[in-house]
Amino acid sequence: MSSDSLGEPVTPSGGGGLARLRLDVAYDGTAFAGWARQRDQRTVCGVLEERLSAILGTPLELTVAGRTDAGVHAEGQVAHVDVPRTALARIDPRDPDRAPDPALLVRRLARFLPTDVRVLRVTLVSEDFDARFSALRRHYEYRLSTAPYGTPPLRAGFVVPWTRTLDVAAMQEASSTLVGLHDFVAFCKRRDGATTVRELQRFDWVRDGDDLTAHVSADAFCWSMVRSLVGAMLAVGEGRRDLTWVRGLLGAGARSSSITVAPAHGLSLVRVDYPVDAELADRSRTTRATRSLPGACCG
Amino acid sequence: MSSDSLGEPVTPSGGGGLARLRLDVAYDGTAFAGWARQRDQRTVCGVLEERLSAILGTPLELTVAGRTDAGVHAEGQVAHVDVPRTALARIDPRDPDRAPDPALLVRRLARFLPTDVRVLRVTLVSEDFDARFSALRRHYEYRLSTAPYGTPPLRAGFVVPWTRTLDVAAMQEASSTLVGLHDFVAFCKRRDGATTVRELQRFDWVRDGDDLTAHVSADAFCWSMVRSLVGAMLAVGEGRRDLTWVRGLLGAGARSSSITVAPAHGLSLVRVDYPVDAELADRSRTTRATRSLPGACCG
Repeated sequence: MSSDSLGEPVTPSGGGGLARLRLDVAYDGTAFAGWARQRDQRTVCGVLEERLSAILGTPLELTVAGRTDAGVHAEGQVAHVDVPRTALARIDPRDPDRAPDPALLVRRLARFLPTDVRVLRVTLVSEDFDARFSALRRHYEYRLSTAPYGTPPLRAGFVVPWTRTLDVAAMQEASSTLVGLHDFVAFCKRRDGATTVRELQRFDWVRDGDDLTAHVSADAFCWSMVRSLVGAMLAVGEGRRDLTWVRGLLGAGARSSSITVAPAHGLSLVRVDYPVDAELADRSRTTRATRSLPGACCG
Repeated sequence: MSSDSLGEPVTPSGGGGLARLRLDVAYDGTAFAGWARQRDQRTVCGVLEERLSAILGTPLELTVAGRTDAGVHAEGQVAHVDVPRTALARIDPRDPDRAPDPALLVRRLARFLPTDVRVLRVTLVSEDFDARFSALRRHYEYRLSTAPYGTPPLRAGFVVPWTRTLDVAAMQEASSTLVGLHDFVAFCKRRDGATTVRELQRFDWVRDGDDLTAHVSADAFCWSMVRSLVGAMLAVGEGRRDLTWVRGLLGAGARSSSITVAPAHGLSLVRVDYPVDAELADRSRTTRATRSLPGACCG
């Protein structure tokens, strides 16, 4: 029998002393130095781990689907955490014999978290669920306003004004050439040992009045990839670059200095897809085998 | 012949030396001490007048449809301003003989205004158009999130979290009893000499998933009226007050201390209605006659 940090015995019921929780998370990235824990910086992971650990009375560590950069938002981020079952019982003290309802954590966290990060749902999942390695694909949106006045003020924190004329048809044509399994090294900031081969599954531009939104989906993204893809397309849309330049980027052997990375605050992680339960373990094993150098992947 | 502040002669073409412009304005009220000019405070009117005066090279004064309080937002505010025609010519210097297109001011203002206030449209209007006195009605929305996790972070600046259970049917029933021509003195902060008789034309609650929005429309509102109406209905929704209490408020002779004013940041002025051009002058005369003590009305 093991024990948690408070010295209480962990009951090894229901498959061991730990329960795995899936957390669906949303945040306004403006005042965060990104997801990943950093010393002396306010990060989403740092704030969440601190409050969750305080509520459950035991130190906890989160694993996340997409480690977003400073200033990037999320509306559908997913993380998992392993919690001693005895600690989980603290959230529903009225009936110690009943299995605690993890959804009670949502209301508790709502009171203790700052308003720029919210845990939308908490669900009990199997040990085969890994927020990072079980993920099938990540969906991002990049939001622009092309209105002559800029961005409507209530959306200024997450929509980038772009008042210069954009040829959206040219941007769509260039975006479509990038879809598929490619080495996206030209679009990636370097991290040693990381593969930059990714399957870009969707890269579409959708216009709705003055709003212009890029929908970008892939099995995973390397560091700064979405913002580099968007920045490259904006250069095409303004006529500063053409299709030949875009095709050349796919054949590049290193990060391209000719790409201007689009501003962080237009980007939001909107959804992460996972397989059905029966295929979770398989997916996790496959992903680890193809992408698994430690610290190499950022979602 | 008069002259503007730069000493340039004003050409009295097209009905005199002044052109009247209608400005459609949106702002995030978070960092503003409301609309109305105040010494040593950052106000929407102050910021707009300062930038507009700088761009056009002459001191200008705005008249507004709804003088919103500190923290209140607007997506459809309307103001008007009288500009010397010679000053207007500065926005389109390429062709001094052509009447300048006021829409060019939108792009100019987009560059010089802070991102929390935008001028959405500028249109040349007749002298009969008065942003305040020609207005037929003002439409406000008050936004709440009833999700157990609170408000989605990207909307935290303009949606108030309300995690306590609300009986929306009871709120709607109570709201409907308030619609009509009444003395709303119980809902109004005092301003000497101001009438508090208003025609409340719509007060509906609309649910969309976890979102709960109040739609509140009237010919005009007295000071703090919308937030008092919403606060009173929240008391009914939580079961702290009943229909008899609400009916009693309509018969009250003074502001009611039993009403808790709802937080400012849930409120937004979304639209102002005006009559067709031919009826503008009539409307303005009627409104002045019934509501016109100076400084008495706040939209």
